[in-house]
Amino acid sequence: MKNILSIPAGTEDVFGSKMVQREVVLSIIRRTYESYGFEALHTPVMEHRSVFEGHHGEGEKIQFHFTDKTGHALMLRYDLTVPLARFVAMHPELPRPFKRYQLAPSFRDDSVDHGHHREFIQCDADVVGAKSLMADTEVIMMAIDGLKRIGLRNFKIRINHRGIIRAMADLCCGFGSDILIVQRALDYADKYVRKGIGGVKEDLLRRGLSKKQVTNILDFLQINGLSAEILDKLSHKFIGHFPGRSAVSELHIILEQLPVSYRKYVSVDIGLARGADYYTGFILEGFIPDISVGAILGGGRYDDLMEKFSGVSEPAVGMAFGLERILDAMSKLHIRIDNEVSTVLVHPAGPDAVNDAGLTAHTLRESGINVDFGHSVYSSDDAKSYASKRGYKAIVKCDGDSKRKAVYVGGDSCQFLKLCGRVLHLA
Amino acid sequence: MKNILSIPAGTEDVFGSKMVQREVVLSIIRRTYESYGFEALHTPVMEHRSVFEGHHGEGEKIQFHFTDKTGHALMLRYDLTVPLARFVAMHPELPRPFKRYQLAPSFRDDSVDHGHHREFIQCDADVVGAKSLMADTEVIMMAIDGLKRIGLRNFKIRINHRGIIRAMADLCCGFGSDILIVQRALDYADKYVRKGIGGVKEDLLRRGLSKKQVTNILDFLQINGLSAEILDKLSHKFIGHFPGRSAVSELHIILEQLPVSYRKYVSVDIGLARGADYYTGFILEGFIPDISVGAILGGGRYDDLMEKFSGVSEPAVGMAFGLERILDAMSKLHIRIDNEVSTVLVHPAGPDAVNDAGLTAHTLRESGINVDFGHSVYSSDDAKSYASKRGYKAIVKCDGDSKRKAVYVGGDSCQFLKLCGRVLHLA
Repeated sequence: MKNILSIPAGTEDVFGSKMVQREVVLSIIRRTYESYGFEALHTPVMEHRSVFEGHHGEGEKIQFHFTDKTGHALMLRYDLTVPLARFVAMHPELPRPFKRYQLAPSFRDDSVDHGHHREFIQCDADVVGAKSLMADTEVIMMAIDGLKRIGLRNFKIRINHRGIIRAMADLCCGFGSDILIVQRALDYADKYVRKGIGGVKEDLLRRGLSKKQVTNILDFLQINGLSAEILDKLSHKFIGHFPGRSAVSELHIILEQLPVSYRKYVSVDIGLARGADYYTGFILEGFIPDISVGAILGGGRYDDLMEKFSGVSEPAVGMAFGLERILDAMSKLHIRIDNEVSTVLVHPAGPDAVNDAGLTAHTLRESGINVDFGHSVYSSDDAKSYASKRGYKAIVKCDGDSKRKAVYVGGDSCQFLKLCGRVLHLA
Repeated sequence: MKNILSIPAGTEDVFGSKMVQREVVLSIIRRTYESYGFEALHTPVMEHRSVFEGHHGEGEKIQFHFTDKTGHALMLRYDLTVPLARFVAMHPELPRPFKRYQLAPSFRDDSVDHGHHREFIQCDADVVGAKSLMADTEVIMMAIDGLKRIGLRNFKIRINHRGIIRAMADLCCGFGSDILIVQRALDYADKYVRKGIGGVKEDLLRRGLSKKQVTNILDFLQINGLSAEILDKLSHKFIGHFPGRSAVSELHIILEQLPVSYRKYVSVDIGLARGADYYTGFILEGFIPDISVGAILGGGRYDDLMEKFSGVSEPAVGMAFGLERILDAMSKLHIRIDNEVSTVLVHPAGPDAVNDAGLTAHTLRESGINVDFGHSVYSSDDAKSYASKRGYKAIVKCDGDSKRKAVYVGGDSCQFLKLCGRVLHLA
């Protein structure tokens, strides 16, 4: 019986109230993306292995590989971004900009030591074919709209630009130096160290930078203040560095385009780097300062990825909500979104009352009420216990002698119970 | 670039209007299951291989197998029923009956010759722990409710009972004879032959039955008439066969319990066998006589499967809608369910109008209107072309000189356009 009663490490069965929360959050994310004109896209869980080759560096080591009966090298998708690039390249006929969202599982054969999931829902929205920085601004707006609808309040959106990191690397380590060293050190410090810049220092040295270079970078990272101040200081530093100034100017425009009510959530943070290599411009990350669940959303602009599939350059920008972390945060902050659906338990008092109870259930259901029929739930005590475990507030018991029905309440949902009573013509 | 621009055979990208139809149908199925008190369950796509061992006979040959980095033998789930049995066995604390639905992909490394999908959404609902035949009746009701809500009308639900097939095998081939031979021959004839009983005859002979036995079965299959007549005739034939009579009596009760308005859709068909081995009682299948898309739903009672996981006997009955076939049928019958969501395209007349257009979009969105921002869609012609490809009926063009906005319609959705106009204070 080995393994028959278990699931693979890093996967999960979700049910009951956790499932309700999950479905509600997914539905909010879906509505938020749709409110910005994004359409749903389905792509298969299985992809040809070659589709994912060369896009995730170290990530390729944690792909799930397998071979089908006809010998094709397949894999479980590692993310939703590469399949989007493949899809868009296969469909040049679709109008641009092409805006799609996809809420679907991705798979990574990662170590599960730190509660990592190996199968997890990604909630992506991306615009392909929009160079306009309004697309970047809308990504920030979607992030804020979504988190507010979910009921989160005290969250922050950090933004930065890969062009700023590039310029920082140029100025601190010498022109044309490896941006990846700086980018990865920042990302590492961001994710794991979280102790100011002390961790970055060690990490940069370990990555082979000279003491002088490291000092330069640490000086750079001291730049702080309000977003506008940071951008001003950067502009000054980048006077001789055109791409750096251009990156600063892009962030400036992206912020300017934000409606006023959104601005308080957003701040420029030059310590933000993000992990994925493919970002080329604006990047963003969302977090909640009060609690330590990590980034609850992330994204950015990636203008070069599409070309690798289609041969045609197509700018792209997008984001993803981190479903698991948002659910974590909600649970830590005691935020619960109630399931709007009310269900009544209808049960027979005994085997002879089954027919009567069946008709009662049918009558209620015809009026648009959700009815759970209590098969073999005969006694009132059993009914109350079942209803309470399932979170129902109303119970209708059928005695079977034609019309006599007793009604019980197990909560405060009198309105709903009254509705059931009216439908059944109960006193 | 081999395979970079392709997806595995038997998988699919779904987008545009097909995706809209798919999402609407899934949402109808979800609401139908919820109206009967079923709750959503998520189980992982990946399962331990041992979980699926010994449940699908020949089906085991078409599982997708792989091994993770720690050497565990994993697979992509073959169906949603076995994971349900595993889940229920792992959660004896959940109240019974346990009713769950799951709309999620399953995977079979099947030949793709006949347009077979290797990755396909299953739409299952099952009740575990209900011996009551009212659970079987409710399965039929859910099937009918769902198909009606989808907009299908001329459909039929065929029902039968494995106990009737067992009794038929006993009486025609000798007591204790292999029921699987008869069951599989019937199922084969049902699925592939569809030419009356001629196909069954050949198939039964090929499966090793004697001419006499085959003649007996063919005589048996001549029994026809209204459901009540068929059940009467079977009762008579099964006079000396208690389990056979009991099966007939169960079908009788299941039908009696159906509200009158449901009965016209349902008929007893002793030629129905269904493929899965695990059914033990009532079975059902839905189809549309006018068109040949195959069964659009199926299910039945399986009282022994759960015990194989938990060691505890738990009766179970359930069904599944066939999403792909339902979409096929809808398309053949020209049934389209409109997406209720209206979206307006807001676009700037040129780069200078982007800020103004952004605020316009924001204002509309704040009023609950879905807004697609036309990044780099500047000319009215481009806007009309984009809107028409995306199915939008309303366009708001922003000229940028503060308040001047022009409004165009590309369809008959004047109400929606008027709403946009009111929100923007347009004349």
